[in-house]
Formats: sequence, C-alpha cells, structure tokens
Amino acid sequence: MIVITREFDAPRDLVFRAHTDPDLLMRWLGPRDLSTAIDRYEVRNGGAWRYVQTDAEGNAYGFHGVFHGDPSPDAIVQTFEFEGAPGHVCLQSATFAERSGKTLMRAVSAFQSVEDRDAMVASGMERGVHDSGERLTELLARLQAS
Amino acid sequence: MIVITREFDAPRDLVFRAHTDPDLLMRWLGPRDLSTAIDRYEVRNGGAWRYVQTDAEGNAYGFHGVFHGDPSPDAIVQTFEFEGAPGHVCLQSATFAERSGKTLMRAVSAFQSVEDRDAMVASGMERGVHDSGERLTELLARLQAS
Repeated sequence: MIVITREFDAPRDLVFRAHTDPDLLMRWLGPRDLSTAIDRYEVRNGGAWRYVQTDAEGNAYGFHGVFHGDPSPDAIVQTFEFEGAPGHVCLQSATFAERSGKTLMRAVSAFQSVEDRDAMVASGMERGVHDSGERLTELLARLQAS
Repeated sequence: MIVITREFDAPRDLVFRAHTDPDLLMRWLGPRDLSTAIDRYEVRNGGAWRYVQTDAEGNAYGFHGVFHGDPSPDAIVQTFEFEGAPGHVCLQSATFAERSGKTLMRAVSAFQSVEDRDAMVASGMERGVHDSGERLTELLARLQAS
C-alpha cells in the first residue's frame, strides 16, 4: 500500500475538477518531460479511462482502468494498469478534504502483491508524483488567477 | 492482502463459467444459510455487478463492483464493496490454471488498509469461503454428471 497526501491552495471542487476534466488533467498529470494524451475518460461508475504518456524520444506509455462508483469530491476510486506490465492491476482512491479554503488530497494505492508495489516505486513513481503535485499547484494558481 | 487457493475436479472453462454465469453463480456463492440473488452481472470491461444475500430472518446484504478488463479464464479482476460498509473497496482477482483436467483457482484480495483486511476476516469471510468452495465442488460434479 502506498499513501500520498498533499495540500493544495484551492477549494476542493476545483481540485476535484482538475482530477476529472480531461482538458485539465492532461495539463498536470505525470513527469514534466512527458506529454499526456487522454484517450478515454468516462467519469462514471464503470466508466473506462485511458491515457498515453510520450517522452521526447517518442516512447509511449499507456495506462488504463475503470471507475468504481461515480467519482465525486468525496472519493475517486479506480483501477489502474500500466500496459507495459499487463495483469498487474492496482486499486487507487483519492479523497479531498477542504479546510479554510485549502484542500488536503489523500491518495491510496493498494497492490495485489508486495512485488507489484515495489515495481511501482522502482518505475520512477516518485518523480511522477513530485512533478504532478507541482504542476497541479501551478495550474490551480493559474485557474484561480484567471 | 488475502490469498485463497482451491483445486476443483473440473476443466477450467467450466470453473470459469461457474464464476461468470449468474444462473450458476447464485447456486454456490456464499454461506449455505444465505440465498443469493443476482441483481446485475455485466461480464465485460467496466461492467457492473451486484448481488444481494438474504438470511432466514430476511436480513439482506448487498455487494457490488465493476470488472477491470474483460473477464476470461486467465483472470477475472473486479472491485468489491460491501454496501454495509460503504467506501471500503477492495480489488479482487481470480486466475484459473488447468492441470490434468483439474483446475487450480487462485484468488487474491487487496485492501486499502490493514483495518479493511481485518474487518473482512472478522465479518465471517472464512465461513463464506469454506461453504462457497464446497458448494462449487458439488455444483461442478452435478454439471459434469448431467
């Protein structure tokens, strides 16, 4: 299990929207040196999502899953599979709590084996999480300034 | 994480069918003293499933989730939520390996917290798993004899 928490200086509805609107999601998701193209993003119970991240050399990395329950600011629950390691599925949930205009996000990933968890960490997850958090912070500031 | 393995004296296609055909599933799933009614069972990527188990006193227990990927004998991957404890979602996968006409089923449940895992064990999971395994063994024997 991996737990990530981060506070954003924005109301929770906006943080939630940045997680579910494909046009916003593609602007912050992932490491800075990859571009993200959203293939599907059906934000509803059973809806499928898929995106592809591409690096400067043109290498493409696909990810997909389905939503469990209708996503809401209370919780986004989804499965997650990296297409480079098919069959290794994890369960992710994100919750958003607002306090004095700021939003605390808590994201939990549950894996089907310790090896799967360790492989996720070894894949460069830390850089992706770090960059994503920074990029989302910047995007939320721009959205609130405009 | 909870891992359950059980061998069935039946070919894997039949064991898989017993896991995905609602008419068969309702005949073996759960403890012997509960009856199972299948509400939805959409066996496809993103398909929703739901069933309700009822005891002799009329108490009803609902469960639901969605399938990740198209279920096949190689793997059934699904989310799982007991409606009596909303928000506590786990990820389940079942794989089926055939050896000399018998089928080894391996079922893995991944939880989002140790507390969720312990609550599942404390809920009487062991009796449900035990009875389900016995009832499925009996059903597979009847299906092959008929």
